[in-house]
Amino acid sequence: MNKEKLVLEIPYGTRDFLPIEAAEKRAIETTLASLFTVWGYDEVVTPTIEYLDNLTLGSNHTLEPHLFKLFDKNNRTLALRHEMTTPIARLVSSRLQDYPLPLKLSYISSVFRYEQTQTGRQCEFYQAGVELMGSTSAFADAEVIALAIQGLLHAGLLDFQICLGQVEFVNGIMEQYQLTDSVKNQLKTAMEQRNLVEFSQIIDEQDLPVTAKAVLRKLPLLNGGIDMLQQAYELALNEQSRRALDNLSEIYRLLQAYGVEQYVRFDLGIIRDFSYYTGMVFEAYTPGLGFPLCGGGRYDPLVEMLGGRPAPGGGFAMGMERVIELMREVGQVPKASQTDVYVLHHGGESQAKAMLLAETMRDRGIRVVTHP
Amino acid sequence: MNKEKLVLEIPYGTRDFLPIEAAEKRAIETTLASLFTVWGYDEVVTPTIEYLDNLTLGSNHTLEPHLFKLFDKNNRTLALRHEMTTPIARLVSSRLQDYPLPLKLSYISSVFRYEQTQTGRQCEFYQAGVELMGSTSAFADAEVIALAIQGLLHAGLLDFQICLGQVEFVNGIMEQYQLTDSVKNQLKTAMEQRNLVEFSQIIDEQDLPVTAKAVLRKLPLLNGGIDMLQQAYELALNEQSRRALDNLSEIYRLLQAYGVEQYVRFDLGIIRDFSYYTGMVFEAYTPGLGFPLCGGGRYDPLVEMLGGRPAPGGGFAMGMERVIELMREVGQVPKASQTDVYVLHHGGESQAKAMLLAETMRDRGIRVVTHP
Repeated sequence: MNKEKLVLEIPYGTRDFLPIEAAEKRAIETTLASLFTVWGYDEVVTPTIEYLDNLTLGSNHTLEPHLFKLFDKNNRTLALRHEMTTPIARLVSSRLQDYPLPLKLSYISSVFRYEQTQTGRQCEFYQAGVELMGSTSAFADAEVIALAIQGLLHAGLLDFQICLGQVEFVNGIMEQYQLTDSVKNQLKTAMEQRNLVEFSQIIDEQDLPVTAKAVLRKLPLLNGGIDMLQQAYELALNEQSRRALDNLSEIYRLLQAYGVEQYVRFDLGIIRDFSYYTGMVFEAYTPGLGFPLCGGGRYDPLVEMLGGRPAPGGGFAMGMERVIELMREVGQVPKASQTDVYVLHHGGESQAKAMLLAETMRDRGIRVVTHP
Repeated sequence: MNKEKLVLEIPYGTRDFLPIEAAEKRAIETTLASLFTVWGYDEVVTPTIEYLDNLTLGSNHTLEPHLFKLFDKNNRTLALRHEMTTPIARLVSSRLQDYPLPLKLSYISSVFRYEQTQTGRQCEFYQAGVELMGSTSAFADAEVIALAIQGLLHAGLLDFQICLGQVEFVNGIMEQYQLTDSVKNQLKTAMEQRNLVEFSQIIDEQDLPVTAKAVLRKLPLLNGGIDMLQQAYELALNEQSRRALDNLSEIYRLLQAYGVEQYVRFDLGIIRDFSYYTGMVFEAYTPGLGFPLCGGGRYDPLVEMLGGRPAPGGGFAMGMERVIELMREVGQVPKASQTDVYVLHHGGESQAKAMLLAETMRDRGIRVVTHP
């Protein structure tokens, strides 16, 4: 006779971290928290739940179907935060409004999005990242990118590439051929989805000179080293796109000063998934993983859009689960938290002695299990 | 002319941790994570969202109105976890079902409850705690209590008292006068709410001998040191209540062996807010704060109720915000994370040198801000 066994499940796209996995998570979190601190970034913690309206202020209409929504006691719509840049911009625009700029802030938090998990992402996942708000300089851009690189290096990863783009380069090229907003958005969506067939089709349908179509078709293919960037200048016919390339050249020079240029290449076709980006954007990739380990960029008007003072800035978010998975592959996991010492006793006086011994060892960081 | 300023709010009962507050939070979390580790407790992380049915399996009907509910894509009801014991029991009954017992697990997590914030608790708040599953011994009970005491001591708190009770003592006393389930529940609710007027009224309404009423009226007043416990034996007329007192005597003897008995007093009127407790229960109080810093107890059938093997156990949860608030009052906050060094440069070669200098210092744990 089978007794039917109750096995309790967890919601789609969520996960448990078993002891060894939770130890990995704590180890990398501690490492990143220290790294962010020595770079001058202060951690902040924001609520898991925010008002829906606040989360969507800086984003376009494609965001809302991905949010976990709920209602407060007054039937106002709440949502679980889907990323941390918007909540931190909200914080900078409210309780931190009198703090001197630039503000350097960091976070390590779970975020929530309805996703198909085959896209390589859980519905609840953890992000570590920074925001540098209150500077428009390429120096700020380079610092954010250099810190992302340091984060990956401190996680023990070596085999990764930062792909660096600039949304104003893409906007400038589209502007110089006077594409309509609708066509621009269609093209960007196709680029974001890396759907080159669709991208070509949209260009084919436009009433444009052959040379213009040829330039537009090159957009998703403009990737490579600093030499590629020089070639891209030939396509940039207006101030907007040329200034975007100047910004990337300056960032690259600064990353050379950081000594990390070997991790950086350009990919001018990068379109990030949040519409608030206004300048450089970047993603970190590693061979064999189709999803970025890390992504970020510059979002100048965001804090103002959320009611704050002008605080142009940029930041990045690192996908903790993806980083932990790779750390495991390259043997960078912390040692399993095995018990170092067992202290056994048989009650009475031996017990008090056992407990004293255990306490002495625990004070020295030794893991002790006592047992009668 | 007033320009109306948009000030974005956060939901009722939630909060932001500004830099100094987040630093305090990270410091105490790191301290407690290390403490739990050296005592042999492995951290686990469970999803923020669980199926509503699973969260309420071990609890009574008073829980559900306090849960933040939402729906998955199939319209199944989810809820934000309201505590961590049930999710961990769910984990032990599923993915950890083949791990040898006893299992010693710990967590540091946010939990969610609709509350009136004047009750001293936010709707989202942080808990750190442990669960010891797979032992019925008083040794296990004492270990959990001793670890809670160590947690408070490691947070730098000295002025606190553990109030220790036993739900089977209360049940045994009520049983010896053959109260109906309804009356038992009314009395327990009044005790939990510390509503002595209501408690007396309910007793007055019963058809019981005067001596029985006198004993019942003493229940919420049975608090004090080990001497009080001896007096309580005189009220305990059945096996159930006597065994509960034996259990408390044994726990106390073990806590003496740990050398922490000065933090412990008895309060036999403690009724904790979750219905799954079946043995010793305790709460930590500090003068001037009307809410417990920490609470826990033994919940023998919980893992089995969630479909697992028999894994009787106990644990505690510490309210992080309350502990941090007290740490601040006694001057135990970590030093503000101020920048140790500013490295200024004027571009060009001086920049590369500045960055190298910054890197060297950061590697040594010095907090460095570079600026052009």
